[in-house]
Amino acid sequence: MRNIKLTLQYDGTGYHGWQTQENAVTVQETVEKSIKRLTGFRPQLTGCGRTDTGVHAEKYICNFKSETTIPCDKLPYALNTHLPPDIVCINAEDAEADFDSRKSAVGKTYAYIIANSQYKNVFFNNRAWHYRYSLDIGEMKKAAAHFIGTHDFIGFAASGFTVKTTVRTISSIEITKDGDIIKISVTGNGFLYNMVRIIAGTLVFAGNGKINPDDLSDIIKSKDRKRAGITAPACGLYLTEVYY
Amino acid sequence: MRNIKLTLQYDGTGYHGWQTQENAVTVQETVEKSIKRLTGFRPQLTGCGRTDTGVHAEKYICNFKSETTIPCDKLPYALNTHLPPDIVCINAEDAEADFDSRKSAVGKTYAYIIANSQYKNVFFNNRAWHYRYSLDIGEMKKAAAHFIGTHDFIGFAASGFTVKTTVRTISSIEITKDGDIIKISVTGNGFLYNMVRIIAGTLVFAGNGKINPDDLSDIIKSKDRKRAGITAPACGLYLTEVYY
Repeated sequence: MRNIKLTLQYDGTGYHGWQTQENAVTVQETVEKSIKRLTGFRPQLTGCGRTDTGVHAEKYICNFKSETTIPCDKLPYALNTHLPPDIVCINAEDAEADFDSRKSAVGKTYAYIIANSQYKNVFFNNRAWHYRYSLDIGEMKKAAAHFIGTHDFIGFAASGFTVKTTVRTISSIEITKDGDIIKISVTGNGFLYNMVRIIAGTLVFAGNGKINPDDLSDIIKSKDRKRAGITAPACGLYLTEVYY
Repeated sequence: MRNIKLTLQYDGTGYHGWQTQENAVTVQETVEKSIKRLTGFRPQLTGCGRTDTGVHAEKYICNFKSETTIPCDKLPYALNTHLPPDIVCINAEDAEADFDSRKSAVGKTYAYIIANSQYKNVFFNNRAWHYRYSLDIGEMKKAAAHFIGTHDFIGFAASGFTVKTTVRTISSIEITKDGDIIKISVTGNGFLYNMVRIIAGTLVFAGNGKINPDDLSDIIKSKDRKRAGITAPACGLYLTEVYY
């Protein structure tokens, strides 16, 4: 039995996130059904993590067990003929038998995109947070520096999660601006539910003066969700890399 | 009577181009109807030019006569509440009585976007020409240099046009690459029907070896449409600037 690892790219606008659920179209079930049309069998896809409704992926990793004889260099082309226009398979490879997209992952990078213009940019409809007020990138970068390292990020998580520990390590946060488009790239060994969106919302509060970057360490240490910024909208979030 | 000049941005995917026509939804009629809902009167919009089905605009200029008393700094916000999500007004100003978006224009810049990757990029669906084969940017730049200057571009026009002269001046062509995305920016005093798309198709032929950049001068002088490259797909074309 092969253990096939796929890299997918998807625009999450039309999906209720990755994970299969009742009465809602998800990326997982859409890809599983496409694999069934291709191979004759619907696999159980193991994904690298959940993504929320409207969240996008530049590179989402999943794997499945299959008896298919389609070689990996042909598989993306074959699968893409069955996938809808907003999902594309960009790589396939045979993985070790014990490879598990979620459990084997040692880190991820997410990008958060802000369209920082007076009027919205139609080319970023559902693809960015349109934030029309002035943002000081220098203050955002100062605030971002405080996230680097190993911290208990419980104050930067939505409630309702079930994890053994809320301690995570962030290895880098890069903030770049190209015209009106601000991109925040966050790399870490793992993320709590809504953690990147809350970090993005907190950095926006640093950029608009609602939070003093010097207070960020205290805010993290306080473990108080109310002291962090708002949860930035899902449409600005992209999973961009998964590390193994 | 005011003569109001609007700057619009639109994703042309859902429209049969700018100009009002029977039995097809166009940007012009959509904006005119939105202005009617705002001001009570449907104006006759004068646009800076036609755009084809599926062509986009970063900055499209149009103007209309109106008795409305809405000040220009409020007008975009007010109008945007009536416009669909894929059209946004990003500026309004009172123009001179004789300003005409089309006749007063002295030049335009178009951008042509190519997504040059093995598999398509879902974030450029309907927004770029997905071209999967290798392109030599150096050869494309060499070819582009031959377009600069004043030439008879009749060999780079679709048939069916009615213009007094097919001589146009191109002042610059810039080609940049960012990851898999190639952007060709063409600035000139005017463009024939499909001219930018044929230039883009010709530059792709220079990039893939089908046309030798050294032959470009002869191809232009030949005035023979068949010697130029293909007409690149409409979805990659963006009107980015109009000069007055």
